[in-house]
Amino acid sequence: MKKTDIEIARQAPIEPIQHIADKLNIPASAIEPYGKYKAKVDLDYLSTLESKPDGKLILVSAISPTPAGEGKTTTSVGLTDGLNRIGKQATACLREPSLGPCFGMKGGAAGGGYAQVIPMEDINLHFTGDFHAIGAANNLLAALIDNHIHWENTLKLDLRRITWKRVVDMNDRALREINCSLGGPGNGFPREDGFDITVASEVMAIFCMAKDLADLRERLAKIVVGYTRDKQPITAQQLSADGPMSVLLKDALAPNLVQTLEHNPAFIHGGPFANIAHGCNSVIATRAALKLSDYVVTEAGFGADLGAEKFFDIKCPDAGITPSAAVVVATVKALKLHGGVAQDQLAECDVAAVTRGCSNLRRHLENIAKFGVPALVAINPFDSDSPEEIDAIKDAVGDLGVEVVVSTHWAEGGKGAEYLAKEVIKLIDTKPAQFTPLYSRDLKLWSKAKKIATELYGADDIIADQKVRDQIAQLEHDGYGHLPVCIAKTQYSFSTDPALKGAPSGHVVPIREVRLSAGAGFVVVICGNIMTMPGLPRVPAANRIRINDDGVIEGLF
Amino acid sequence: MKKTDIEIARQAPIEPIQHIADKLNIPASAIEPYGKYKAKVDLDYLSTLESKPDGKLILVSAISPTPAGEGKTTTSVGLTDGLNRIGKQATACLREPSLGPCFGMKGGAAGGGYAQVIPMEDINLHFTGDFHAIGAANNLLAALIDNHIHWENTLKLDLRRITWKRVVDMNDRALREINCSLGGPGNGFPREDGFDITVASEVMAIFCMAKDLADLRERLAKIVVGYTRDKQPITAQQLSADGPMSVLLKDALAPNLVQTLEHNPAFIHGGPFANIAHGCNSVIATRAALKLSDYVVTEAGFGADLGAEKFFDIKCPDAGITPSAAVVVATVKALKLHGGVAQDQLAECDVAAVTRGCSNLRRHLENIAKFGVPALVAINPFDSDSPEEIDAIKDAVGDLGVEVVVSTHWAEGGKGAEYLAKEVIKLIDTKPAQFTPLYSRDLKLWSKAKKIATELYGADDIIADQKVRDQIAQLEHDGYGHLPVCIAKTQYSFSTDPALKGAPSGHVVPIREVRLSAGAGFVVVICGNIMTMPGLPRVPAANRIRINDDGVIEGLF
Repeated sequence: MKKTDIEIARQAPIEPIQHIADKLNIPASAIEPYGKYKAKVDLDYLSTLESKPDGKLILVSAISPTPAGEGKTTTSVGLTDGLNRIGKQATACLREPSLGPCFGMKGGAAGGGYAQVIPMEDINLHFTGDFHAIGAANNLLAALIDNHIHWENTLKLDLRRITWKRVVDMNDRALREINCSLGGPGNGFPREDGFDITVASEVMAIFCMAKDLADLRERLAKIVVGYTRDKQPITAQQLSADGPMSVLLKDALAPNLVQTLEHNPAFIHGGPFANIAHGCNSVIATRAALKLSDYVVTEAGFGADLGAEKFFDIKCPDAGITPSAAVVVATVKALKLHGGVAQDQLAECDVAAVTRGCSNLRRHLENIAKFGVPALVAINPFDSDSPEEIDAIKDAVGDLGVEVVVSTHWAEGGKGAEYLAKEVIKLIDTKPAQFTPLYSRDLKLWSKAKKIATELYGADDIIADQKVRDQIAQLEHDGYGHLPVCIAKTQYSFSTDPALKGAPSGHVVPIREVRLSAGAGFVVVICGNIMTMPGLPRVPAANRIRINDDGVIEGLF
Repeated sequence: MKKTDIEIARQAPIEPIQHIADKLNIPASAIEPYGKYKAKVDLDYLSTLESKPDGKLILVSAISPTPAGEGKTTTSVGLTDGLNRIGKQATACLREPSLGPCFGMKGGAAGGGYAQVIPMEDINLHFTGDFHAIGAANNLLAALIDNHIHWENTLKLDLRRITWKRVVDMNDRALREINCSLGGPGNGFPREDGFDITVASEVMAIFCMAKDLADLRERLAKIVVGYTRDKQPITAQQLSADGPMSVLLKDALAPNLVQTLEHNPAFIHGGPFANIAHGCNSVIATRAALKLSDYVVTEAGFGADLGAEKFFDIKCPDAGITPSAAVVVATVKALKLHGGVAQDQLAECDVAAVTRGCSNLRRHLENIAKFGVPALVAINPFDSDSPEEIDAIKDAVGDLGVEVVVSTHWAEGGKGAEYLAKEVIKLIDTKPAQFTPLYSRDLKLWSKAKKIATELYGADDIIADQKVRDQIAQLEHDGYGHLPVCIAKTQYSFSTDPALKGAPSGHVVPIREVRLSAGAGFVVVICGNIMTMPGLPRVPAANRIRINDDGVIEGLF
C-alpha cells in the first residue's frame, strides 16, 4: 500500500535546522530557531548580502487549475531537490499555508508524495506565527479606526465608507457581514462591517511586497482605510497605525527556513490570496534566497494567467528581480478535463482530448513568451497516463520550441526530477531571458487591465458600469494611476466563466468592482464573485481531527 | 537619572536558554527553543518526572489593589532571585501578558526595576504564540457552532441561547456587541453575538487548569456552548470540536521557560482573567516547576480576596498541589490610600493613615490563615516611606504573628530580596502549612458563594434575583453543583463597591449573573460590572509605538 503524504513526512529523517543553514553559509548567529527544525533568518544579516550577485530565479506556474490537481508546490520542491542532486545549489521559495482551511476541507499545502517540505504539521498549523502577527496588525488598525471615530473623529471618516475589514484565520461565514459597535454609546457608533480570512488582508500583501522593515512601514502608512463624506482617502498613517503595526510584524518579517525531505533549503514565507492579491511568497524570502544560492525555485498561485502574470508584472518589477525561466506544470488528467472529458472518465486513454486540452497549455506558454521568459512543461504523471497521451502533449507544443518533461518527483523525490533539473539548466544556459513586463506602469489603469485581458486571456474587450469607471477615474485622480493592476477572476478559465475550459477567445471581461491596495501597491480589478471569507463544508475536516493515544495528530491531512 | 524598566531589561546580559534549562537539569532534547532566549519544555519529558517529590510552593498575593501599584510580579521575581542568592534552587511561575492592552495604556507585565523577566519585549508581544493558539481554538469552536446551525442544526441549538463568544487579542470595543451572519442564506442565520478579549476565553482558563493533553481535551469536550429551546446544554464534544481544538493547542500547552535578570529560571505560561476566571498561570507550568526545583514562587491576580482565594479553592485542589507559604505584598502608599488619603497626598508621612489602611492588610492575612497557610508581608518601599510608617505596619499586624519585611528587589534585584528570602524559608521551616480549602465541594453553589462572602469579604449575606436563583438551581440540576465557584467582583474592595477601601463589614454581595465554565471546572458568580472586552483610550499608546531608525521599539513600555 502506498504511503500517504503525512506518513512520508512523519517517517522522513529530519536534520537540525542549522545544518540546512550551513548549506547556505548562514552563520549560527543569524539564525533564530523556532523549535529544532524551523528558523527565521535575521534581517540585519540578510542586509549585509546586498552586494552579492543574484542567483537564477525559476518560476513554477501551471495550466488553468482543475479539480484533478496539477502539483505546483510538489514540482517546486521536486525541482529543488533535483537541482541539488545534479550538483546545483538550489533553494525553494514557497508560500505559507493558511490555518483556517485545514479545518474545512482535508489537505495541507506543503507539497506531496516524496516532494514535500517538513516539518509538515508545523508548517500547516501555527508555523512560526507569521499569520497570527499579520492578523493582529490588521485588527489593531481596525480597532484604531473605530476608536478614532468613537472619541472625536477629527479625521471625519465616513462610517459608510470604511473599507478596512477585520480578519480571522478561520473559515467562518458568520463573520462575512456583521453590524458592529452595537449596544449603546460606550461601544461606539454602529456600522456595517465584516471579516476576511487573514490571508486576504492587505497587510498580508504588504508583508509579501516589502523589501525591508522600513519599506514595510512605508507601505503600511499608505493603506487607505476609508473615505470622508467628500471622498477624501484616509490612511493608516493619519491614524498613527503604521508604527505599532510594524512593531507587531517586526519578527514575522524575517523569512522562515525549513527543509525539503532531501534536506535542501526551503524558505516558506507569506501567503497572500492569488485573486485579490498577487499570490507569491514574500519578496524578502525570494531576495534572500537569490543572495544565498545559485538557483531559486519559486511558485505563484493558480494558473499562469493569474500567478505568473502577477509575478512578472507586480512582484518582479517592484522587487527588482528578474526571472530566468518558467516551468509550466500540467497533468494528462487535467489536460483531458480542459479537452472536455468528464471527471469520472479521466482514467481512460483519450489522445484526442489531451490534444484539445493542450490549447490551454499552449495559451499559457505563448503568454509567458510575451514576457521574454523561456519556459518548459513539466508533466506530473499518473499511473493511468499512456505514452501516446504524453506524445500528444509534445506534439501539441513542439512548434513553440518548448520541451515537455515527465518528472517523477512525487513518486521518487529528487531522483525523479533530475531530468527536469537538467532541462531547466539547459534552458537557462541556452535561452537567456529577455524579461520585460507586459505593460508600462505609465499606462492608464483601464488600459493595463485591457492589455492583460486581450493579450493574455484572449478576450475581445473589458467592460464596466459607469460606477466602476467613475471609481477608476477617481483612483487616477487621487494619484494611484501609476500602480499595476491585480486581476481577481476565476482561476478555472482564461475567461470569467469557470466552465469555459481550454483556450476561449472572443469573450468580454466584465469588471464588477475595483479596490485600492495602496500599501501593497496595486489596484485590484475584480471580475467575478471573489470570496474573501470561506465557509466550512457540511461535514468539516475538523470533525475527524484529533490527537490519538500515541500523541499523533489524526485527520489533518 | 534612574533607568526605565525597558532600559534595564535591554541592557541586561542574557544567557542562552539552554543554560537556564541546565540549572533545572532539563536535557537539551527536552527543550524546544523559540529564538535563543525562550523555550518550551517538552510535555513527554515532564511526564517522566511524576514520581519526583514536589518542591515547596510559595504564593505571592497582595492587599486589595490601588492605583498606587503594589508590585506582585516584581516581588515574585525578586523573591526568586533572592532565594537563589541564598543558595536555594528556586523557579518563578508567572502569567503571560495579554497583547491587546499593550496598545491601549502604556505598560508591560514582566516585573519592574531590577526584578524582571527577560526578554521583556518578546514576552509582552507574541512571545511563543500561546495566546494566538488559544484564540484560534476559541474561534474554531465558534465557527463550528454557526456552521452546524447553517447546515442543519441537528442538535437544535437555540440561536438566542448561544453563550460561546468569539475572541480577539485586541482592545476593540466595536466588537463587544455585534449582529453576525447577515447578508442572506449563504452567510448563515443572523443572530446576536460578541467578542471577548482572548484572555477572557474559557479556553484560556481550561488551558491553565489542564494537567496534560488528555485532560485538556476532556475539559474542552465539556465546554457548554449554548442551549436548546428547552434549555438542554450543548457541548463542544457534541460538535466534535474538542479534537481539533486540542490539535491547535498541542504545542502551546508545553510551558515556556525564560529567565530573570539574574538568570534564574522562570516559567511564564497562560494568563486567564482574575475576575471571570481564576487568574493563575498554568497548572502544567506550576507542576513542572515543582518537580524541577526546590522552591517555586508563583502569583495570583488582584488582591488575596480574589487571587489567593481562587488559587487555594480552585487551582490547588484540582491540580493536587499544596502551598507552603504566602507572601502578601503591600506598599506604604497603597495602605495610605486604604486609610483614606487622597491620591496627591501620598508622599507625605501619615502614620495614622497607614494604621487605618492596615485594616485591609489584616483582613487578607486573617483570610489566608483560614486556609492554613503561613504568611508574611513584603513591603515594596518608595523613597517617600518613613521608618515610622513601616513600624506602624509591623505594629498593626504584630499580634497576628506575621513578619513584615521591607524588600528592595525593585532597586537592587535579588540582593535586595535576600532578607525576604531568608524569612520565607524560616516561615516554611518553622510553620508547616495545614492547607485546606475554605469550603467542601459538596456544598451547594449558593452556600459556597455565601461562605466566601461572609468569611472572607466581611459581608453579612449574598443576594440575587429570582432569575439568578433559578439559573443556579438549573446548574445544580444539570450536575454542575459540585464545581467550585469563581467570584467576579471589583478587585478594589472586599465589597462590590470599588470605593469602599480598608476592610468594610456588614455589606451585602449582590449576584447579578452566573456563568458556567464547565470545561475550566467552575461556576462564575458575577457580582458587578465585569468588562471582558476593553476599549482603547482617547489617545492610545499605539500612537507613540514605533521602531526607530536604530531598529529599536519605542513607546511600548
